[in-house]
Order: sequence, then C-alpha cells, then structure tokens
Amino acid sequence: MGDLSELFAPKRIAVVGATEREGAIGRAIMDNLIDEFDGEVVPVNPKYDELFGLQCYGDVGETDADLAVIVVPPKVVLPAMEAAGEAGITDAVVITAGFGETGSEGAAREKELREIADEFDMNVVGPNSLGIMNTDVGMNATFGPEMALDGNMSFMSQSGAFITAVIDWANDEDIGFKDIVSLGNKAVLDEADFIEAWNDDPDTEVIIGYLEGISAGRDFIDSARDVTQDTPIVLVKSGKTDAGAQAASSHTGTIAGSDAAYEAGLDQAGVIRADSVQHLFDAARVLGDQPLPENKDVAVITNAGGPGVMTTDAIGESDLEMANFTDSTLENFSETLPPEGNIYNPVDIVGDADNERFKTALDVALADDNVGSAIVLTAPTAVLDYDQLAEDTVELQHKHDKPVAACFMGGERVKPAADRMQEAGIPNYFDPSRAVDGLQALADYADIKRREYDSPTEFDVDRERAREILETVEERDDTRLGVEAMDLLDAYGIETPQGDIVDDPADALEVAEEIEGNVVMKIVSPDILHKSDIGGVKVGVSDEDVYDAYEDLITRARNYQPDANILGVQVQEMVDLDDGVETIVGMNRDPQFGPLMMFGLGGIFVEILEDTTFRVAPVSESEADEMTREIDAAPLLRGARGREPVDTSGITETIQRLSQLVTDFPAILELDINPLVALPDGVQAVDVRLTVDPDEL
Amino acid sequence: MGDLSELFAPKRIAVVGATEREGAIGRAIMDNLIDEFDGEVVPVNPKYDELFGLQCYGDVGETDADLAVIVVPPKVVLPAMEAAGEAGITDAVVITAGFGETGSEGAAREKELREIADEFDMNVVGPNSLGIMNTDVGMNATFGPEMALDGNMSFMSQSGAFITAVIDWANDEDIGFKDIVSLGNKAVLDEADFIEAWNDDPDTEVIIGYLEGISAGRDFIDSARDVTQDTPIVLVKSGKTDAGAQAASSHTGTIAGSDAAYEAGLDQAGVIRADSVQHLFDAARVLGDQPLPENKDVAVITNAGGPGVMTTDAIGESDLEMANFTDSTLENFSETLPPEGNIYNPVDIVGDADNERFKTALDVALADDNVGSAIVLTAPTAVLDYDQLAEDTVELQHKHDKPVAACFMGGERVKPAADRMQEAGIPNYFDPSRAVDGLQALADYADIKRREYDSPTEFDVDRERAREILETVEERDDTRLGVEAMDLLDAYGIETPQGDIVDDPADALEVAEEIEGNVVMKIVSPDILHKSDIGGVKVGVSDEDVYDAYEDLITRARNYQPDANILGVQVQEMVDLDDGVETIVGMNRDPQFGPLMMFGLGGIFVEILEDTTFRVAPVSESEADEMTREIDAAPLLRGARGREPVDTSGITETIQRLSQLVTDFPAILELDINPLVALPDGVQAVDVRLTVDPDEL
Repeated sequence: MGDLSELFAPKRIAVVGATEREGAIGRAIMDNLIDEFDGEVVPVNPKYDELFGLQCYGDVGETDADLAVIVVPPKVVLPAMEAAGEAGITDAVVITAGFGETGSEGAAREKELREIADEFDMNVVGPNSLGIMNTDVGMNATFGPEMALDGNMSFMSQSGAFITAVIDWANDEDIGFKDIVSLGNKAVLDEADFIEAWNDDPDTEVIIGYLEGISAGRDFIDSARDVTQDTPIVLVKSGKTDAGAQAASSHTGTIAGSDAAYEAGLDQAGVIRADSVQHLFDAARVLGDQPLPENKDVAVITNAGGPGVMTTDAIGESDLEMANFTDSTLENFSETLPPEGNIYNPVDIVGDADNERFKTALDVALADDNVGSAIVLTAPTAVLDYDQLAEDTVELQHKHDKPVAACFMGGERVKPAADRMQEAGIPNYFDPSRAVDGLQALADYADIKRREYDSPTEFDVDRERAREILETVEERDDTRLGVEAMDLLDAYGIETPQGDIVDDPADALEVAEEIEGNVVMKIVSPDILHKSDIGGVKVGVSDEDVYDAYEDLITRARNYQPDANILGVQVQEMVDLDDGVETIVGMNRDPQFGPLMMFGLGGIFVEILEDTTFRVAPVSESEADEMTREIDAAPLLRGARGREPVDTSGITETIQRLSQLVTDFPAILELDINPLVALPDGVQAVDVRLTVDPDEL
Repeated sequence: MGDLSELFAPKRIAVVGATEREGAIGRAIMDNLIDEFDGEVVPVNPKYDELFGLQCYGDVGETDADLAVIVVPPKVVLPAMEAAGEAGITDAVVITAGFGETGSEGAAREKELREIADEFDMNVVGPNSLGIMNTDVGMNATFGPEMALDGNMSFMSQSGAFITAVIDWANDEDIGFKDIVSLGNKAVLDEADFIEAWNDDPDTEVIIGYLEGISAGRDFIDSARDVTQDTPIVLVKSGKTDAGAQAASSHTGTIAGSDAAYEAGLDQAGVIRADSVQHLFDAARVLGDQPLPENKDVAVITNAGGPGVMTTDAIGESDLEMANFTDSTLENFSETLPPEGNIYNPVDIVGDADNERFKTALDVALADDNVGSAIVLTAPTAVLDYDQLAEDTVELQHKHDKPVAACFMGGERVKPAADRMQEAGIPNYFDPSRAVDGLQALADYADIKRREYDSPTEFDVDRERAREILETVEERDDTRLGVEAMDLLDAYGIETPQGDIVDDPADALEVAEEIEGNVVMKIVSPDILHKSDIGGVKVGVSDEDVYDAYEDLITRARNYQPDANILGVQVQEMVDLDDGVETIVGMNRDPQFGPLMMFGLGGIFVEILEDTTFRVAPVSESEADEMTREIDAAPLLRGARGREPVDTSGITETIQRLSQLVTDFPAILELDINPLVALPDGVQAVDVRLTVDPDEL
C-alpha cells in the first residue's frame, strides 16, 4: 500500500457526483468541504458547468485533483475510478453503497473495484463509506452532519453511524480527533493500512477504532505489534458474544471469526481491547495526553474517607495496586496531616483540608518513588477552591511527569475545574472506578511497550514425512485421522509413547516385547469413535496376554459393527498417569486469524470448567510458555498440593512444534492432542485426532 | 425502634448549638433549615436570647420541638439528649463527632448515648452524622452546601462526604430524592431501621445506599427480605477487595466482615449490589420509574447497524437475552422495513428511517409477547426529529407498560430529547452497555420479587449429645476437635461412615469385624496434623491385619512425637471414592453475619480454583440446593462425562443439618467436613475438623 499521508491531507479534492440537490449525499459532502477545507474543492458532474459558484468538471480525469471522493450511483463508480486512475489520482474515497454488502452482483463489482485499484496503485477507502476527515486541513469529506474538533486521536470505524454519533458527543465533551475514516467494505484499504499510516503521523498520539471484523488476522497482528511499540491502539471489536457475532455477521455480510481468536489476536498484537464505548474513550483520552507510569502502584489523596474506600476497591478490582509509601513520605504525612486523617494509602487529608494541604500532600505522594500514579479525589467542601485545586493538580502532574487522574465528585460546582484539567489532559470523573480505568489503560500500555516479541522457533522437522502421512487421507473416505497419525507428531518431534499399529497378533507381540513392562492395546478404526464403550481398549496387558487380547479386540469390533473399517490394533507403552497431569493441546482454524492454538488441562477442566487459553499461530516460545501459566489450573502443573512439578518446558515445546506443523500445513483443519500427558520428566502425546482438507494438500 | 415518619417530617426542629458565627456547623444547619423548611426552626443556645431574628432557647427541653438536631461539643451532647428525652422529644440527629470513631473515651460516650436513647425510646441518627434531609417538607438538617431536588429515591450513606458529592452531581443531572440520611456511627438507628421506615413510606419508590459495614447481618437479611418484596434496594457496599476492606476498617474503626459474607448476605436479602457509583444510579433511576419486565428478552430497534451490534454484545454479556420475535412480528417487519434492513433482532430500520418508521417498529416490537423490554438506539441522521422520537418513545412505553431504555447516541443534538425522556423516567445513555445495565437491574428486581423464601427446616436432632461432645474441649488444652467429633455430626443426623475410635488393638478388631469388608485406620491425635505424612493412615486393612496395623500406627506416632497426645485409632468403613465425588461443607463465623456456610468440591476445586459458594446460616432447603447448583463444577455432581449422578439431595440435607448445628451452637467457631463424599446412593462425612470457643458453651 502506498503512502496515505496525501489521502488525509490533499490539496485539491474532486467530488465525483457533486450536486446542489437538497438531501443528496453529493450535496452534503460539497457543503461539508466548502465549509472548512483549507484546499480547493472541485465538483465533478457532467450535467453542470458550475456548482456552488465553482467550475464544475464533466470528468474527474480533467480535475487535476489529488483526491477523488466518489458518490455517483454504483454502476458508474468503476468508470469514475478508472478515469481517476488514468489521470494519476492515487487516492479515492468511495462513498457509494451497493457493493459486497448487497449480494453477488455487488460482490462482483467490488472485485472489479479492487482490480482497478491494483492496476493504478490507488489507495481506496470504502466502498460504502461515510467518508474521511482530517481536522488539520479542515477536511470533512463525509456526508455526516458535523465536523470533528481538533485533537490527537485518529479514529477508524466499520460503522459510519457510530462516527456521526461519536462526533456529536465528542464535540460536546471537547474531545478532538486528527483523522477519522469510515472503513466501509474495506475492499482495498483496511485497518492494518490505517494503523501503519497513523503510526507515521506525528500528529496522531493514539489510534482508536470500532471494528466488526479484521480482514487478515495474522497480518494485522504483525503490523499492530510494530505500531503499538510507538502508538497505543484501543479498539472496540464487536461480536464478542454469540448473539453479537451473529448480528455483526448479518450487518457486514462477512463470516466473523471466533471471539477467542480475536481476544488472543488483539492481545498478541499489543492492542488494548475496550469492552464498551465509555471504556474506549476513557482509555484513549489518557493515553493521548498522559505519561506512562513506571509501576502499577497508585496513591489516592482525598478529603473524603468514604469515596477513598470506594477508590481503593476499584483499584483492588483492577490490575493496579495501592502504593506503599516510603518511610519519609509517611513521616512527612504524619507531621503535616491532622491526627484524625490517614497517612497510609488512601491518604485522608480530612474534610477541612484547604488547597494548601491538598497540594502539599499530592506533591509529597508524587515525589515518592513507590508511587507510579495518583488519583486526586474530592467531595465538595466549603474550604476548597476547585479551580485552584485543578491548577495545582495540573502543575504537579507536569512537575513529576507521572500520570494523575481526577475524581472531583460533584456537578456544576466542579465543572470549570474539570474543564481546566481536561484541557491539560487530566479527565475528571464522578465515579472513581472510571478514573481507575484510565490509569489501568496507561499501565497496560506501559506493559505492552515493555514487551519483547520473540520470533517463533524453527524446529528441525521431517516435513516430507508429515506430508506423506497427511496424504493418506486421499486414499480414504474419511478426512479424519486418529492414532494412525501418531507418526505425524513424531515427524515434528513431538514425544509419543513407544508403540505401533499392527494388523496381526504376532506383530502385536513383537511390538509389545520391545516395550518395557505391560502395554495398552486399542482397536484402530475410523468407524469406532468410542472405543472404551465396546471394550476396545485394554490396559496393562502383559506379553503373554498380547495374543489373546489382539484376537479379543478384533472380535469385539466385528461384533459391534461387522462392516467397520478396521485399520488394526495399536500396541502402546503404558504412560503412568499417577505422576502425570493430562493436558490438551489443540488447534482449529479461524476464518480471520488462521490456526488458533488451544491449551488446557484434560477432562473436566476443558469440558466443564472451560479453563482454556488461546494464541494465534505461529507461537513463539514465550507465548507458548504464557499459555501454560495463564489457565486457572496452572498451579497443578507446577507442583501444587505437594505434587511433583511436571515438565512444563516439554508442554511449551509441544505447543510450539504443533504450531509449526499446523502453520506448515494449512490442510490440517483441526487437530487435538488429547491427552498430552505431562510427567515430571517429560511429556507424551498419547492420542491425537485431526481433520484434513485434501484439497489443500 | 419507633416510627420514623416524624424523624423525616417534623413540624418544629430545635437546633441545639445554633449560632450565627460564620464557618460554624451550627450556623450552616440553621442557614439550611431557615432557607427551605416548611415548619418552624428553633435555635437553642444558652448564650443568646435571639438568633437569626428567632427566639433562642437556653434548653432544648423548653422548645416544644419534635426533632432535636444536636451540634454542641461532644461533652455536652449527652446532657442535651437527656433534656430532649425528658421533654418527650423522641427524634434526634447527633451531628457532633468524637464518639466511637475516636478511641475508648469516645466509645464510652457512645455507649452512654445509646443508653439514653433506650431510656427515652428515642430515634437517634448519628453521632458523627452530616444530618438528614426530606425534600417533601424542605428540611435540610445537614451542614452540607446544597439541598437535594425532589424525587422518589431515599438514600442512606455511611459517608457524609459522599452525600454532598452526590447531591451536587444529582442536582446537575436532575436526579431527586425523598429522604437522605447520613448514618454516622449508627449508635442507635442503623441501615435496617431506615429500610423498614422507607418501605412504609409511600413516597419512596427505591432505596439506595452506600455502606461500609452492616451492623447486624442476619437481622438485616430478615428485614431486607420483607422490604425488597415491595421496594427495591440498591447498595454500594465498599470494602469488596482486601485493600478496600482495610481502608473501610481504618475509616470507620470497625472490623469489617468478609466480602464473601456480604455478597451472600446481600443476595439472600434481595438487595441489588452495585459495583460502582455509576451502576448505583443507573440501576436506581430505572427501578424508581419503570415497570418490571415479564421476561428477560430484549428487543433492540435501531437506525444504525454498528451500534446495534454493540448493543447485542452488551445484552449477550448480561443475564438478558435478545428477544426472538413471533412470526407475526417478523411478517410485519418484512412488509414495512426496507429490504436492506434487518427484521430480526437487533432490528435495523436503516439510516434513512424517519420518525414514523421508528415509532411503528417500536410499537410492533413492544406488542410482541416474546418481548419483555426494548432499547431504542439511534445515531444522528438528517431525517430524524429527536424530540418527536422522545415523545413517541415515552408514549409507547406507557401504552405497552414495558420497560424501555434509550440510547440516543450524540451530544447537544439529543440533549432536549434526553431531558424529555428522563422526565418520564427513561434515562438516555451514550453507551449502549449502560442502557443494558438499567434493564438488567429491572430484570434482577423482577426475579427478586418472584422469590419465595422458605424457612429453614428444623430437623429432629440430639442437641444434648452434641453439647456433651463439644464440652469435651473444656477438658483439653486444645480448642480444636478432629475425627473424635464424628459423633457430633451423627447427633445432628449427618451420615458418617461406620466405625469408632478405640485405644486398644482388641477393640480395634472388634470394630473392624462389625464392618463389612476392609477398613481404614487412622491415628487420632490433636498433635499430629498431617497424618498421611508420618504413615498415620492405613487404607484397605483386612480383619487379620487390624491388630498389627494398630500397633504400627501407635509406634509411628510415638516415633514422630514421643509426647504427642494420642487419643486412639479410628477404625472406619472404607468409602468407595471411585463412584463418588469429594466435596467440602464448611462454616466460619463472620463478625457481621455470623455463621457463613461454604460448599465446594474437594481438593483442587476449592484450593486452587476457588470454586466455592457461600450462604449466611441458617439456610433453607432451597438455599442449600442452590449452593450445590451454582459452583462451576456443579455438572460433575449431576452426571457429567458419563458418570453416575451423585446424591445431591444428600448434600443439600447435610448443608442444612450443619447449618442447624452451627446456629444452635455459637461456640463452634469454624467447622469443615472435608471430605463429604457424595456417592450415587448417599453421602458420607469422612472427616471433620472444628474449633470451639469454650466460653460460648
């Protein structure tokens, strides 16, 4: 994708489909542009010689514009695009709807649009877009009713309606933006292009967005990882719940990926995911204006005990901590604060505190090295001048260069003070929990900036052997593979118990004799799913019993289903479960993000407690390691309740090797190692199931 | 407690400690009362004959007032109270601080205050209170800076500062109150008294509060259960987190109960617990003004697809559901809505929707029997008149008598419409998730009103035998009892495995012979906590091995600790764990709520996953049954993963019988049955530990 800086800061804009007709979209866009745009606006409409007192062109190719905004009916969009492309106009915004969102004819038209964009190397927003804005050059190339205020956030949205709603609200709240883009159908430019462009834009301090889907999940992760090292991204990704995903799918006409994939992918990308509109803006406002905290420890300075307790609760429920002050801070407080106050955090400077006492206490707290950020919390009193307190808060925030959140609880009485602080980037909230949310966003982003992304390890594997095993599905009716694919794991260096599949009792005995101790024997048939139910599994078989066990297994299978396709009998080393923990490592393929790795403990932990964790593959060593740490039952792996710890590095390596396998072979649609038994001295993949798409081989 | 209606609506108020001195609290209260109070205000101060142009009395006893507001210094509060009491003044508000919150002298003074109140049967608010308000009679008997607006919420707060903050904010938001009380130290009147009084007040539609502690937990539950059948209660109870609890304790000087107890107790009381100030008011506003929904199914009518998806997500994350429309509704929508819209929920009536289309769609949706409530959701468009939409929304809400929440997304543009709706009790939010929170509060309260509280079952038990067993601690150095207390469970009809504790190998054999099959033998000693670690437990002992096993257990115990107090050896029937599930039923005593029952599955479920549930005892059958259903691992009890279901009614009965035991004997400080093994055909309490306070016996 080309440079997008001209898209947002053109000098001459052609409006293709401009008109003076009241109520027309082409009219609304012309009005919006003529109103404030610093550059030139050129109407294009073959029906007129002049519009709005400006020379009107018949063809966009004659306009010498650097941006074409296209609002003509669907059928004439493509010729207009071609004319623009041929004239060297490399940026276009297609407002017109009636493309991919409307069925097969529209989808075909969208495909052609993409081809034209490719041919002329054009940056195209839309189609089906509300348009774009840039407050720096006063460009409102949308048909929305209002222009945004100037600010340092850039905003993308997959819903045009949400943009109009946000601007109306934000103007009222004095919240401004740098660029705004309505993404529309994302036929050419998508979210990844805009985050990259905004990362290069010195006027964009924070990127926010509302998305219903992400076009190319893995690419987005890779771009966003780079971007979020410099510029924070906060997104609402809707379709979090099943009902929401269905609504999003019906709204955009695309199949949404699973929310587990989005949750994992956005986290891997370093994106902060907001769970509501309020959270989106609460987080974005502080990220745009405040420094990052050096630790998660918060000081609360208040003149009101009760609200101090509420704030402490809100901090307790966040990932932040109440700061423990140094001795010298405590000494200072005990000398300067009245005896009925509280020198420990939350610092209660008591209801009769004047501005001087507030300022001094905040200054001392912010100077404490144990304090990463502070909340200034007040209830209205007769002795406090809020305007002065706002000035002092802003001054001390600058002096110490630590984040400060304000909670001047009140209405009219605190409004001018709140406005003053907001100007300086310190938003004020009535509810302490929202002030805490803001500080939490800063701490989260500080963590993201400290991340060091390691590349996925490339293990030395036998890819050819794996391919051969996968290709066996082409000879079968069934695209599923079971234990007969244990060699697939082996080819990728994943530990499996010693053993083999045999189709003869003598071979069974031979395999069993090679294995030390008793063996497990299982019938192998794609037609028999629940082997245990028909007695198709024998545990602890000694060498002398192998022969009979083989015959018995075959008989049971035949009795159960005479025409079953019996591939043989698996003879396998017994894995001692007493010292081990059963885990599951799995993968399914997400439509947006591709291979999604899953890890959890076996049995009830996954099935009933849903104690699982996900990552988009390929995963690095540190990501695989995190997976083994972040499930609720993780302490079980590390020796809880007097057990011996199991080999978690073996689990980590298995996750990575499986990640490499499923990344190498898109033909593997689903795969579960269940159980992967983790023992004190290693891991063993005891059983595997997978589904293969032969067309992808 | 007497009737509180006169407290909030007196005719003549004596202000004891009135003064004209600027900055004095007695001055602030006089100013506030003279300003607006409908009745008479009488200053009391022996130094003056006249204050504020009013006759000033030397003694409150001469005033003929019906409410005394006391602001004199701590040392003269009690004489003033006595004078008031002797003169027959039965209502008093003690503003003065310096009582229980300040140390032992203050605590003694508070105790005397309580005695005076008892003697004269006085209703006393405080001490250490900001005061009280009643908007009906214009009484602002506080020293806060502002009077509240008129409304139908009554509000109690353990923080005076929070009251002043709320009033300042609420006045700005046009939110009104009936009564407000600053609870102060709650020496006499506490939260239970106010909720009962407000339940009798026809002008109070909803009760809200901020509490840092509850004085008498079980009494509060019993009162609140009655109240919440008629009047909703929404509370912020702070000290939710450990840090918050510590801050609350330091603020109020009382030991807070555990939050598990508050969470259980408030739920058992039918109280809706708000988790933030915003949530408190969002819930309270709709509860005061809107009807209750008949089901949890919500219709979303919108002109904006993206916000529709966000709202669907918010509903998906709540306990509400997206409504499924009836066929006739769908038919109507498919005839009346444009083809690019969505007739399914969320109903997208498309960006060009005018007021008529909005009104018709909302009318049709609200008429649908499958719809319990609706959200009207809009983004700004040129064709929509918001004021008209507000009128239509209010009209249709009344017509269908179903709750409606509004989400007119925008700022200035929607302000007059939002004001119009708020007047009619339909709050408007920019963030759809807050509109959903409001509807959720209504659905929660509808559930609470549908509750039928059953009384705890009184089982026929052997209380005397239980007492005798508990009294054995008096002969011991140790207040803990272990398996030697199995008979205690038996006395209360809790199933225990067959067996006994013996101090002789011959007796051991005799017990073992009475038991069918092999037995378990355990050393019994209060000095040996981890029996297994020293080999103090033998499983599967056959009759012939009992003698040797006995000797071996004793030897091991002696070797481990020569001076250990060995009570004997327990010989117990083996409980087959293969078909059973290990559970834990426990109790500890909360400082506010008394005996708190706990239930969870044994081992990692409680210790690592913290999958537990709590109820304040005594528990009823339905409460005990809920406990077995609401832990995450509950499906394991009911036959998940092909297992046979265990006897959950046996668990339920054990919880109830234990609840009766710990209610009967406050001397039992802590008790755990661990494990209570639940089998398909019954339960068995295999082990028990308890701590007893001999002084309570």
